[in-house]
Order: sequence, then C-alpha cells, then structure tokens
Amino acid sequence: MKLGILGTGMVGNAIGAKLIQLGHEVKMGSRTPSNEKAAEWVKANGPKASQGTFADAAAFSEIIFNCTAGTASIEALKQAGERNLQSKILIDISNPLDFSRGMPPTLTICNTDSVGEQIQRAFPNVKVVKTLNTVNCNVMVNPSLVPGDHDVFLSGNDAAAKSKVREVLTQWFGWKSVIDLGDISTARGTEMYLPLWVRLYALFQKPNFNIKVVK
Amino acid sequence: MKLGILGTGMVGNAIGAKLIQLGHEVKMGSRTPSNEKAAEWVKANGPKASQGTFADAAAFSEIIFNCTAGTASIEALKQAGERNLQSKILIDISNPLDFSRGMPPTLTICNTDSVGEQIQRAFPNVKVVKTLNTVNCNVMVNPSLVPGDHDVFLSGNDAAAKSKVREVLTQWFGWKSVIDLGDISTARGTEMYLPLWVRLYALFQKPNFNIKVVK
Repeated sequence: MKLGILGTGMVGNAIGAKLIQLGHEVKMGSRTPSNEKAAEWVKANGPKASQGTFADAAAFSEIIFNCTAGTASIEALKQAGERNLQSKILIDISNPLDFSRGMPPTLTICNTDSVGEQIQRAFPNVKVVKTLNTVNCNVMVNPSLVPGDHDVFLSGNDAAAKSKVREVLTQWFGWKSVIDLGDISTARGTEMYLPLWVRLYALFQKPNFNIKVVK
Repeated sequence: MKLGILGTGMVGNAIGAKLIQLGHEVKMGSRTPSNEKAAEWVKANGPKASQGTFADAAAFSEIIFNCTAGTASIEALKQAGERNLQSKILIDISNPLDFSRGMPPTLTICNTDSVGEQIQRAFPNVKVVKTLNTVNCNVMVNPSLVPGDHDVFLSGNDAAAKSKVREVLTQWFGWKSVIDLGDISTARGTEMYLPLWVRLYALFQKPNFNIKVVK
C-alpha cells in the first residue's frame, strides 16, 4: 500500500519504519522537499522509503498518518492541501503539547475542543481517526513492549474508516485491544489523558507503559 | 476516629457510610445545620453519624473528606473556616465538572491549574491529598467491585499526610494498588482524566470500571 507520514520527529520515524518493515511504500512529508531528518529516515529505511513536501506525501498516499506536533498539525495539513487529502483516511496521532512553559508540558487546546476535532472541522471531507496518541511511539508500533493486556483508543466520525484503522492497529501493529470511544469529539478524552501520562512517565522514568481499562 | 465529610451528594454518602461501617464517628457538613439530605444520611447510618455545618464538620474531625463538587469546593472550605481546617489532612475527592453545557461535562478548571492546587493555595496550612477522584463513588470504598488489578492515585505536598491517606485507601477501603504521582500539581493529571472517564462511562453504560497502569 502507498502510505504517507506527515512529520519527521520520533513518531513519524517509528511509524514510518514499521510500515516499511511491513512491506509498504512510505513517503515522509515535511515543509521542504529535502528535509534532512526525512533524508536520514529514507537512507535508513531502503528503497521503499521516500520523502517530499507535506503535499507530496498526501498526494502519494492511500492512508495518511499525522505525526506532526498537535500545535503544528493544522498548518501542516493546509500545506498538504485539501485536494491531496480529500476523502482519505487521516490517522491523527498528534497531541497539542506546549513545552513553552517548561516541564511538564501543558496543552494548547483542551476541554471544549481537541486537535482531532480541529482537523475534522478544517477538513470536513477527510476521514479523521484519532488513535495511538496515548502511548510512546515505540509502543505504538510494538505494543508487546508493555507486558500483558492494555488498550489503545479510537475516535472518529466515519465507521468504515475506524474499521480500517482498527485493522491497521491489530493486524499491522499487533494491538490486541482497541476501544472505540465514539465520534471525533472523544479525542478530547485521550488528548486530556496526556497530563496524567507525563506524570506517570516522570514517575517511572521510562516511556514503555500504558493503561488497561478494567471492568 | 472522628471524621468529617463535606458535601451531601453521592460521594459524601458513600464515603460516610463506609467510614461508619468501619466504626468511626462521622459528621456530614453542608451549608446549613439541618440539611435534609444530611439528615437522611444520619438516619440511615445510626448513632455514630451526625450532621452540621461545614464548620461543624471540620471542627469535629481529625481527617476531612472533601466530597463537594469541585466547582463549589473553595466556597465550602471557606465556610468550613481556616481555623477548623488548619494543619489537618484534607482528602480531596472533587472534580471540577461543569454540566452547564450539557453532556458530557467539561471542566471549569484544568491544564494550568486544578481544584487540588486551588485548595492548597487557598489553605496553605491544610495537608491536601488528592485521591479517589478517578473512580465512581461505589468503587472508591469497594474497589473489588471492579475485578482484578487496578489503580488509584495520590497527589499531595506532605509525605506524612500521603502516607496516612495511603493507609486509609488500603486498610480502610481495600485498595491494593496506590500510585503516588507526586506533589499536588499532579492533581491536574487525575482531574484531566475525567473527560476520558465520562466517555468510557457512556460507552460501558456502567460506572464500575477503572484503569490499571501496565509497565
């Protein structure tokens, strides 16, 4: 499958590498066509890896992974262009973390809105599915790094898109438990979980943990 | 032990009833000395149960449970009076849920502050320990309602107070796993988990669930 990664950070690198390992063709998009971090990623990931602008990556792909910072996502998606995104599934992994006040980060948007909803409003024809934003990037693509049972969440308005993303999570990435929270407004719940995540991270001094919903 | 409950809602009723069952003397405080809901609770809970104003309940108690709505807590504690609260442990179970926009509720305070921190700032000599606000009131005092392992969190600035509250949670209420997140600012994490909790509640259609941190 042809897949696009928006963003050249840790999340984009981890997701992109996993998709390549699975045999897909992956284009990493950034603001410029020759971004150095994207070039390194391409070099490390072989002939099925390529790079380009946000627009190049979006145009290339059947499914697009938003791995930009939540604070930069709308701008990145505007650069990707509505025509290149239209009607596609956008897997939104971003969190609106604001490090400008120091550690721990706060959120630039929360409570009555979320990045997931912002993106869906800005691009009404894109099938936005929020997921994976509650775990570290290594756990995203290798959930067995955390022992035992634990959950990942789904938020989105399009049932067929969520069904496809559930397949990506379970069959491609190895997730055993995926909880569909409901429409895209439920992204508020998972994005607002981040302040608890960062405190747990500070406590454990390691990022490979997650939560299991017990009932 | 002499214990105080601030608030006459579901949380106050559940915590108060459990404390009576454990053999303690419990005074439920509210805005007026003869509040009807407090009177019903007293009637249902026998001779060791009593009622009074917020100030009466605070003056009576060695440990005080804040079971008021997070949106009303500061005002209730002002009525309880600094002199009656001073140097005591205040177990803060409140959440700043705002139902005025309809369901699901939003928070009146979050991200850069929390009710726990607000209370600690307003009453610097009180030993505020935030806990139990991440589960339904029945689970608070009977964690075995949720099968298997699951966690409750602690936030507070005073180590000795947190140690005492850990005892309350484990020895009185039956919690098996208590995670100390750190100082009172970590209450932001647990209060901001509520938007995820309310979505899980809507999904499961039952309040008896919790999370287990897996690492």
